[in-house]
Amino acid sequence: MSALSKNVKVALLQFHAGSDKQANLTKAKEFALNALKKQPDTDILVLPECFNSPYAVDQFKNYSESIPTGETTKFLSELAKENNVNVIGGSFPELGDDGHLYNTSLTFNTVGEIVAKHRKVHLFDIDIPGKMTFKESSSLKPGNKATVYNLPGVGTLGLGICYDIRFPELAMVAARKGAGIMAYPGAFNTVTGPKFWTKFGVARAIDNQLYVILCSPARNPDGGYQAYGHSMVVDPNGNVVVEAGHGEEIVYAELKPEEVDEVRQNIPIGKQRRFDIYQNVADTAISSDL
Amino acid sequence: MSALSKNVKVALLQFHAGSDKQANLTKAKEFALNALKKQPDTDILVLPECFNSPYAVDQFKNYSESIPTGETTKFLSELAKENNVNVIGGSFPELGDDGHLYNTSLTFNTVGEIVAKHRKVHLFDIDIPGKMTFKESSSLKPGNKATVYNLPGVGTLGLGICYDIRFPELAMVAARKGAGIMAYPGAFNTVTGPKFWTKFGVARAIDNQLYVILCSPARNPDGGYQAYGHSMVVDPNGNVVVEAGHGEEIVYAELKPEEVDEVRQNIPIGKQRRFDIYQNVADTAISSDL
Repeated sequence: MSALSKNVKVALLQFHAGSDKQANLTKAKEFALNALKKQPDTDILVLPECFNSPYAVDQFKNYSESIPTGETTKFLSELAKENNVNVIGGSFPELGDDGHLYNTSLTFNTVGEIVAKHRKVHLFDIDIPGKMTFKESSSLKPGNKATVYNLPGVGTLGLGICYDIRFPELAMVAARKGAGIMAYPGAFNTVTGPKFWTKFGVARAIDNQLYVILCSPARNPDGGYQAYGHSMVVDPNGNVVVEAGHGEEIVYAELKPEEVDEVRQNIPIGKQRRFDIYQNVADTAISSDL
Repeated sequence: MSALSKNVKVALLQFHAGSDKQANLTKAKEFALNALKKQPDTDILVLPECFNSPYAVDQFKNYSESIPTGETTKFLSELAKENNVNVIGGSFPELGDDGHLYNTSLTFNTVGEIVAKHRKVHLFDIDIPGKMTFKESSSLKPGNKATVYNLPGVGTLGLGICYDIRFPELAMVAARKGAGIMAYPGAFNTVTGPKFWTKFGVARAIDNQLYVILCSPARNPDGGYQAYGHSMVVDPNGNVVVEAGHGEEIVYAELKPEEVDEVRQNIPIGKQRRFDIYQNVADTAISSDL
């Protein structure tokens, strides 16, 4: 069985969020409708990380919402349902039932139901002296599972958020459980982006022989955290199929089951792994049920 | 403690082997001495995969030798000892005590002792119709361990051979056991090389924050299997430090402990992994003792 059920048309909505949540949701809708106008048979709309708020540790609480009762969940659900399109809803700050904050990504099917929920597992705590210091863990808690799911009519997908991409295990688990697409809403910055963004997208794609979708916010001319932009799709051979610039933009791609199947058949690493030497990380990982 | 003990100067000997084993060894020595003439304080000489024989499944038996009694082992040991230099001895066909053939890489310290032995773990069996078909397993048996070792005065290294690079676990195991360098003698070809060689080198480097050394045979104008060439060193940030063309050539690089330490300190993924969600593959892997 192929990892993808059919040719999958995606649209990556690269826009930047400001301090007005309502305006951010309005912009998300505007970008979504523009994408659907240009590519009416879009299968999946993909939004960027933290699309309803500024990306700042001291702001997450103000923008956080419960799931599924909060307005951003409802907004995304309606967007999917009204337009009969699957939505990988970037991420936004979740107020958990435990009172903690999470950076959370939801995926909705075409009737607006939540089919996947990923809480960022690896929080972005880095310190490059004089260039980039960020500590998500000062306000967020991390998730506790890898996320793999079936999206009806599309196939099997894995989800990670931004810094999660530096940890190969999430994609390994997803691919070995059948994923043909690994999607990462992510907001690399102007320091780490040029150095690492494409390289990690390519690494995940070639190691797991699947499509990688990276969807970033656009760079924000009004200041604050400057996202790298460059939303992209990487094919299972590690070729960048499409890449945005750093401004607001929508990019489109068509993902093909035969691209996944062909490389997996020609170079059958999936059957050649040596689990007698090293354990299959997918066997014991904690992941969402399919 | 740093993964590297000091600045490490390497020379990658990219030459092609023909059907005459003696001529191949003579050429290896000629390239080694040229490298040492140009860079007298070289710490490690690195040779390519299958440097004493043609790369062909029906030829491995004719060129195979026992280790350590065979002439190629003795040749490499003397090369190291006479020149007071460490040698990562590419690879050559080994006739095991069990009567089976292996694609084996030895590393020698500066007094000519074997400090590591890696038998290729993942045999190169691929079939890209009309472009590239190869089946190492028709004549070779695979190794049964990951290889990590201390090279006195240099630091901790991991070893893989060619196709091994497509399987992330060997480098993950090596890095998590302390390696600052992952070396892959390898002979990608003119189909897989342009598509994948650099990408895999970069992937291993950024995921494990270590130096990656890829040493290929040169392309052979006399025909047979056409190696990709492009021997290279990739730094822990995924930058290609030096890269050969496809002809016979020696390339040099200096690997710096602070490059490894800095990226590991700034972006501390080594401390941020979520082994509560996915198992640490290094914990249970079968690897050579340090």
